[in-house]
Amino acid sequence: MARFMDVHSGFVGVTAQQLQEAHERDLAIEGEEAVHFERAWLDPESGKVFCLSTGPDKAAVMRIHERAGHPTSEIYELPVEVA
Amino acid sequence: MARFMDVHSGFVGVTAQQLQEAHERDLAIEGEEAVHFERAWLDPESGKVFCLSTGPDKAAVMRIHERAGHPTSEIYELPVEVA
Repeated sequence: MARFMDVHSGFVGVTAQQLQEAHERDLAIEGEEAVHFERAWLDPESGKVFCLSTGPDKAAVMRIHERAGHPTSEIYELPVEVA
Repeated sequence: MARFMDVHSGFVGVTAQQLQEAHERDLAIEGEEAVHFERAWLDPESGKVFCLSTGPDKAAVMRIHERAGHPTSEIYELPVEVA
């Protein structure tokens, strides 16, 4: 299982509740692709959203986002993490 | 205290050890600006690095990265998080 960060643009002015609802649409179907969206962060001023996930590959993560109604083409695989 | 994501480019082929060393240069001085770098993730193929931090403002986070030798101008404040 690999880790990914995907990035969305255009979420200017989106609220915490709207982001939560969007995230729950991912959570509802992510198991069908063995994906899990761990956390998502929003900058409502610039409209950027960052989603941290695990899954088998980039395509599986993107399919879940697309089916949940918020597709993106910007995704990175993250084999290295430090804390 | 606010949360931030900053993004670096150009880290193609960087190793886990090199990222850890860079991160430790941040950790060594971050307290001087009340910043804390929680985690950092690297995609060595595209060269992207994502750093999740807390601190008083964007400028403080950027000053620590600059003094540690890896400046960036791309940073987002993240008042909304879901999990």
